[in-house]
Amino acid sequence: MNLKAFYALSYGVYIVSTWDNGRPTGCTANCAVQITATPATMIVSINKENYTNRCIADCGHFAISVLSEKSDPALIGTFGFRSGKEYDKFSSTAYDICDTLPVLKDCCAYIVCRVIDTMDTPTHTVFLGEVIGADTRNDHPPMTYAYYHTVIKGKTAKNAPTYIAEDGADSAASRAVCSVCGYVYAENFDSLPADWVCPVCGAQKSAFRIEKP
Amino acid sequence: MNLKAFYALSYGVYIVSTWDNGRPTGCTANCAVQITATPATMIVSINKENYTNRCIADCGHFAISVLSEKSDPALIGTFGFRSGKEYDKFSSTAYDICDTLPVLKDCCAYIVCRVIDTMDTPTHTVFLGEVIGADTRNDHPPMTYAYYHTVIKGKTAKNAPTYIAEDGADSAASRAVCSVCGYVYAENFDSLPADWVCPVCGAQKSAFRIEKP
Repeated sequence: MNLKAFYALSYGVYIVSTWDNGRPTGCTANCAVQITATPATMIVSINKENYTNRCIADCGHFAISVLSEKSDPALIGTFGFRSGKEYDKFSSTAYDICDTLPVLKDCCAYIVCRVIDTMDTPTHTVFLGEVIGADTRNDHPPMTYAYYHTVIKGKTAKNAPTYIAEDGADSAASRAVCSVCGYVYAENFDSLPADWVCPVCGAQKSAFRIEKP
Repeated sequence: MNLKAFYALSYGVYIVSTWDNGRPTGCTANCAVQITATPATMIVSINKENYTNRCIADCGHFAISVLSEKSDPALIGTFGFRSGKEYDKFSSTAYDICDTLPVLKDCCAYIVCRVIDTMDTPTHTVFLGEVIGADTRNDHPPMTYAYYHTVIKGKTAKNAPTYIAEDGADSAASRAVCSVCGYVYAENFDSLPADWVCPVCGAQKSAFRIEKP
């Protein structure tokens, strides 16, 4: 089996959010797809180790905020590489309440769903939701997973279905790796200004470790 | 509910294939996503009215051929706008047998799965498959649904979850519409050569009807 075949699958980049006993929480996801048109239904796939999984099951609702190419890439780190159990991800994230669910202001569209079925898998729960609300927020192109990887040069969270442990053999030169989210800066790291922060998760420059080949 | 929000979701373009009592068959799909990494599993969502749905259920296996930007767009019409019940879609489509399933030659990657679970919805069956084989075929960029719509200017099959009845108000000029697949040619149709065929489904020029505003 050649795992590179999985890189040929196309995805968007989404923040899936819900309520945790009155507090908004959520996580980054790349699996959010429409299943039926009438009634409109969607599925999202969430790792069972993600705190958001349990919160969606308890709340019975979830919202999908569609990130655009203009969305702040730091959102992916905030929602993808930290646990909502210990960290209030929405404390630094602007949001509105749309159709009773927390939705990011910095998205190009959102879809709000009521859970009507689930499918269990070894590591993820697939939630089937009936759409109860949806709207666009701006005309920016939706961010694709390919755009995230090739333009933003972001990494894959360990709990994502698309995560494949990397062998680090893609670069022979030294590189700076964000200790928070794993983002790799392969250029001249020393030349960056002192107030430079990780473009993915917002961590300070001091959070990076230099890896020698 | 603003249905345009659904246009912000990102998809690839896939041919999902299986066996129909020893004969290869399949259909176009845009929902093919990885769910878990270990073991690797995928889901595909197939309309119950598609003949392929019943064939996957009977066969217990399916293959996903990932179309690239260089793949022949006519494949989308062949597999998306005709029924495999009456028409042998593979009679004009080159394929190999990979991990026991028929896989298109004209794809950039493929993934073969054994069905391990299903989720029923009003119009579609969501098949969860454990991956038993996968490989890449070339380095062409995978075709996204956005590329199909904006570059190839293709239409959505009526059985696709993403189908929304169009109001035809997007053009005030006369246009030629393919009676087989619904592809719209909005330029000077008369100037096209006699042997021109529909770029999506391969229908002859005579299969187009002229619609006046």
